Amino acid sequence: MIKIYGKNCFYEAIRAKAPLIKVFLLDSIAKKDKNIIDILNKNNYSYTLLSKDKMDREFGPSNQGYAAYREDYKIYGDEYIDIIPNKGGRILILDGIQDPHNLGAILRSVDAFSYDLVILPKNRSAFITETVAHVSTGAIEYVNIAYVNSLLTQINRLHEKNYWILGTDAKGTTKTEDIDKSLNLAVIIGSEGFGMSKTLVKQSDFLITIPMTGHVNSLNASVSTGIVLKDLKKEIE
Amino acid sequence: MIKIYGKNCFYEAIRAKAPLIKVFLLDSIAKKDKNIIDILNKNNYSYTLLSKDKMDREFGPSNQGYAAYREDYKIYGDEYIDIIPNKGGRILILDGIQDPHNLGAILRSVDAFSYDLVILPKNRSAFITETVAHVSTGAIEYVNIAYVNSLLTQINRLHEKNYWILGTDAKGTTKTEDIDKSLNLAVIIGSEGFGMSKTLVKQSDFLITIPMTGHVNSLNASVSTGIVLKDLKKEIE
Repeated sequence: MIKIYGKNCFYEAIRAKAPLIKVFLLDSIAKKDKNIIDILNKNNYSYTLLSKDKMDREFGPSNQGYAAYREDYKIYGDEYIDIIPNKGGRILILDGIQDPHNLGAILRSVDAFSYDLVILPKNRSAFITETVAHVSTGAIEYVNIAYVNSLLTQINRLHEKNYWILGTDAKGTTKTEDIDKSLNLAVIIGSEGFGMSKTLVKQSDFLITIPMTGHVNSLNASVSTGIVLKDLKKEIE
Repeated sequence: MIKIYGKNCFYEAIRAKAPLIKVFLLDSIAKKDKNIIDILNKNNYSYTLLSKDKMDREFGPSNQGYAAYREDYKIYGDEYIDIIPNKGGRILILDGIQDPHNLGAILRSVDAFSYDLVILPKNRSAFITETVAHVSTGAIEYVNIAYVNSLLTQINRLHEKNYWILGTDAKGTTKTEDIDKSLNLAVIIGSEGFGMSKTLVKQSDFLITIPMTGHVNSLNASVSTGIVLKDLKKEIE
């Protein structure tokens, strides 16, 4: 079970017909937001009214009057391979993203640019927590996520499934505009502190880079992910 | 005075020859990182060694062994107008960004894509704090920042200085690729919760949009800023 809270996260869960175990509204919100009452009734969700005190104690200060207990998100393991497209697929591989705020922001981009899947290594990644769900503003309801033992193994499997592996690195020489967008693409983003691991750099078919002209020459991990996902997104006919 | 801490932030401050009042190193770091000792000596910074306990008490858990007291960052007011370019200028206007993590991440992008200035309204923005400096990983040393009373007044001034005002909005119809990159551009990014204020939407010469195909249809504010800054950056000859 996971707690979800905050207006956006709550609305998206309802809209996505998420399996909610129990729904809570702040009493004053139930009076003000007639829209949500309609939607809850229409979708046969019952709800419990809570005082501000109880709401804050159970769901923290960012609940905005909307919260729920939700069944755990569906998380894939190796069997993700069965759900990825054979044509024009888009996969994001996160090589060690640790910050839940970055992961939440990244999930918004994954949804916004219609990527098919996010793959993370089990042993050195942020996990899907309440914070991640909240920061994703509900985008998490629409994103396929897989946690795996070894990224290296998965890259071999993806190669077999005709995916091109695109590493991202400041030393890369390929620009996103030179990549054929009709291909199956799996993009690797490195960790906040250390970038991509060397083993994965070696396994990449191309190393792409974001041209920068400043002094610090690196971006926040969720920002660089957003830029790359947008620049490599499927071309919609 | 402001406290700076963390390896990146510290290194950038030294590299930028920032006015440091007092420099602190964790005793074990002074033994391990000979590079920083060389740099400090070469630049005539003296330093004080601290135990882990004292370092953490004074600078919090993210100091990584590097910290300093620094003079306050130079912040512009209305007089920023004297430092903006007449040709190919790039200004970012933040219409109500409140989250220090977003602001810090945005400053990294501002540096990375060589924007000339960031303008924020005094009364409803995150201010430049230790957290912002830290999250910017030192990019703040290279970025011009102005806090102003009224964005509306500044937009009129920028218009007079031949800047085109580009609002950003999900309902926008102009794509970044249709904007003439040789112009002076001032890009407005709306607040995390509410987007751009209506008055500023009205004052915009164009409303640009990031094409999205997902369910949630909005990005984290620092991510959308990064995408827009990159797509509208100066074309370097």
